Amino acid sequence: MQRIKYPAYLDKIQTAEQAALHIKNRHILGVSGFTKAGDSKTVLPQVAKRALVEDIKVTVLSGASLGYDTDADLAKNGALYKRLPFQADPTLRKSINGHEVLYVDQHLGQTADMLQKIDTYKIDIAIIEAVSITEEGHIVPTTSVGNSPVFAENADKIIIEINTTFPESLAGIHDVKVLKKQPHREIIPVTESDTRIGDPFIKIDPSKVLAIVYTEVPDSPAVIVDPDEKTSAISKHILEFLEKEVDAGRLTESLLPLQAGIGKTANAILSGFKDSKFKNLTMYSEVLQDSTFELFDSGKLTFASASSITITEACSDKVFSNFEQYKDKLLLRPQNISNAAEVISRLGVIGINTAIEVDIYGNVNSTHIGGTKMMNGIGGSGDFARNGYLSIFACPSMSKEGRISHVVPMVSHTDHTEHDVDVLVTEQGLADLRGLAPVERAQRIIENCVHPEYKAQMLAYFEEANKAGGQTPHLLEKAFNWHTQLKTAGTMKVNALVDELV
Amino acid sequence: MQRIKYPAYLDKIQTAEQAALHIKNRHILGVSGFTKAGDSKTVLPQVAKRALVEDIKVTVLSGASLGYDTDADLAKNGALYKRLPFQADPTLRKSINGHEVLYVDQHLGQTADMLQKIDTYKIDIAIIEAVSITEEGHIVPTTSVGNSPVFAENADKIIIEINTTFPESLAGIHDVKVLKKQPHREIIPVTESDTRIGDPFIKIDPSKVLAIVYTEVPDSPAVIVDPDEKTSAISKHILEFLEKEVDAGRLTESLLPLQAGIGKTANAILSGFKDSKFKNLTMYSEVLQDSTFELFDSGKLTFASASSITITEACSDKVFSNFEQYKDKLLLRPQNISNAAEVISRLGVIGINTAIEVDIYGNVNSTHIGGTKMMNGIGGSGDFARNGYLSIFACPSMSKEGRISHVVPMVSHTDHTEHDVDVLVTEQGLADLRGLAPVERAQRIIENCVHPEYKAQMLAYFEEANKAGGQTPHLLEKAFNWHTQLKTAGTMKVNALVDELV
Repeated sequence: MQRIKYPAYLDKIQTAEQAALHIKNRHILGVSGFTKAGDSKTVLPQVAKRALVEDIKVTVLSGASLGYDTDADLAKNGALYKRLPFQADPTLRKSINGHEVLYVDQHLGQTADMLQKIDTYKIDIAIIEAVSITEEGHIVPTTSVGNSPVFAENADKIIIEINTTFPESLAGIHDVKVLKKQPHREIIPVTESDTRIGDPFIKIDPSKVLAIVYTEVPDSPAVIVDPDEKTSAISKHILEFLEKEVDAGRLTESLLPLQAGIGKTANAILSGFKDSKFKNLTMYSEVLQDSTFELFDSGKLTFASASSITITEACSDKVFSNFEQYKDKLLLRPQNISNAAEVISRLGVIGINTAIEVDIYGNVNSTHIGGTKMMNGIGGSGDFARNGYLSIFACPSMSKEGRISHVVPMVSHTDHTEHDVDVLVTEQGLADLRGLAPVERAQRIIENCVHPEYKAQMLAYFEEANKAGGQTPHLLEKAFNWHTQLKTAGTMKVNALVDELV
Repeated sequence: MQRIKYPAYLDKIQTAEQAALHIKNRHILGVSGFTKAGDSKTVLPQVAKRALVEDIKVTVLSGASLGYDTDADLAKNGALYKRLPFQADPTLRKSINGHEVLYVDQHLGQTADMLQKIDTYKIDIAIIEAVSITEEGHIVPTTSVGNSPVFAENADKIIIEINTTFPESLAGIHDVKVLKKQPHREIIPVTESDTRIGDPFIKIDPSKVLAIVYTEVPDSPAVIVDPDEKTSAISKHILEFLEKEVDAGRLTESLLPLQAGIGKTANAILSGFKDSKFKNLTMYSEVLQDSTFELFDSGKLTFASASSITITEACSDKVFSNFEQYKDKLLLRPQNISNAAEVISRLGVIGINTAIEVDIYGNVNSTHIGGTKMMNGIGGSGDFARNGYLSIFACPSMSKEGRISHVVPMVSHTDHTEHDVDVLVTEQGLADLRGLAPVERAQRIIENCVHPEYKAQMLAYFEEANKAGGQTPHLLEKAFNWHTQLKTAGTMKVNALVDELV
């Protein structure tokens, strides 16, 4: 019981089943958890279980994605009414696209503000994972901070899950501050990745605490695949580009704080910095993956700030059994501070994010398949792309044995406009688009990023569109032909279709 | 000569013709001027003249649009190679869309940063309008600050135009600070609309000054049309919405600092606040139009911060002949501070901007006709829409005798994604989209904003798309049908086409 240092909570200890009974049909829940880290592992899943035998449907706000099958089970069992601000689960995604669950996709830095602005999502119960409870009854979070501070403040009641699989020494890596609503919003005085501005715990009103549950379930491990030929090539292009920036005197050898999205491409890119000539790197990101710890181990990285730690089982064993070795190099912040426009623009973060598809003018689709079906949410990519020093987007040029080109004439859904995309990179090459007009951007993207198998048909589109003139030449009647042909003929390739028809 | 208080400049006085001879073919010019205010009125136009008889083509960076026919003449006479970051001139626009001039359309808050990041636009000569020169040789600007501070810093040489039509008492309303490049970027400590953080002049290196020219040409006057039925209705919807926010306790009677885009709709909306129940309003905007001074006169507005003052001749007479009456209520800032993400998010600005077209999911096109042809640039709308407390976009529901619906199935060009659009309003009504999922947004937009003459065909599109499912239901093969039909049949109306065909 030593993890609870606030004696008044001791009689609130319940099982997950008991604690979950506080949750009622139509409740709005604010849950901890950001990219699978630090989520509710026993109480929230009970809601999914209950939905098998009773009418219970809830709205779930989180930091970002949840671990294990929590989102999947909630969706499958019909326990979800609305979900925000992020998801990345295949089952939930199916329910969203099938209109069984409403999904509000948000810039991850903006959900906390929304809760202060509108009453639509007044939180009934916050469920927050903790590594321990302070002597004043406050929550020391585990591997993520996410939106938990604003959920705790906004909620009527709070359920705490104490996860004993994490060492108590996690306490101290968090830096928590709840920003005031305008017109009282204060300066966020973060001037370096390691600036501390708050408390190492989430302040709560102890009278709100309904129940405390113990869990021994570790974070859902991240699955990282090794860099392959494509992701290695992408990484190489980015490193070469940044080296040129250093050579030209535009950046120093320690660059500027790095942000990298989640997933294999971003992880591979970041891993590539191990063998680079850069030194004393820092991160100001939203999530730290295995690559962050590889960079610590290689001596390249001096400090990393984020909102969560999402790592593989092997990396987790390494990190948490030697935590003192990493502790003073890490800081976890609420996601409206890790992703704050103010801080990202001040520090000049170099944002590296992945795209589903990009177009010849540099617009980016990072969420929708075929313009309609949600994959993962937009996440924090927009927070960094808009406000950072450099906004880099990466994707393979082609996939599915050549049936899909990830560079298309016009993106079928726009998450990031050309104004917010400085650099595009595929395994084919990198296009530095800064300061270019749309037609110049198109020429550079087609030359450097499009797969050779798609270059001729892309040039054909661009040249035909270009003849008609315009700042951003397009043929609206043909702009989505590649997408519609993929649906009807199974490939974006024009010649393949012609061959097939012949 | 009393306007030049730095004697060493006295032998640099030249005619506009003489001064303009310093400008060479292929030069990159950084010129003052923001929404027609405080621009170069005699030197830059000389470049257009020279282009009639010699080979001279320059790149022009400004704050925003220039006055009179400067942009038109430069374009018409073939004197422009590239133009950035904004334009709003019909002749220049034609040259841009005809691929005679390259145009880089930028968030107005981000051009200054770009100059610090890349070398593409190293300024050869900055041309800056001044009301006077300080004893240290520094520039007191006129009716705009724009990008002049960063142009002056970045430029090899500087030409100053002293405009004697403005009272010297303009000195004092400017607050100028050049932000350092990352990693030395400082906190921007603006915490209220009226916070001063810099100098009342643009610091320059006097040895850079090539020439000083006197001009007696006033600012190109703004043309404001009286509110009509549509703009009045839009204004009314917005005021009612904001009143409800106050009634619900989400905002106070002084709201939060207001920003309004340029043009008749924005001006009409702002004028509407005169007869509202709001009190002690403030503005944190990029441009101040006639409505700002109407609000001062009516006692509704206590302070206005922006980067320029763009007013009609009548308003100009009133303001500059009674300048002491307004002076302590005004502040002009560099546009990377008036439009800084950091400040806009801290103050919680309420941004009101206009759209060319919007779609059923709340994406906004504010720049392109038919997805290809540039109208005006994106301006600062994105700076405010992304980072403000509330992002409102307004447009008429229909125009051209019903041939064009400004609410369309899918915008033909995306400047602001659904994530950055909180409220849409047409004369038909207002849709509060905060916290809604895409299909909910669509229902509300169709119900509240679409013109009755287009409602049936919009519902038909939405319902058909909706049947196929997806987070953002669309039929890619039909998404632009309204646009392509407008081109071929002269109307977006399906029935009209059917009638015509029958």
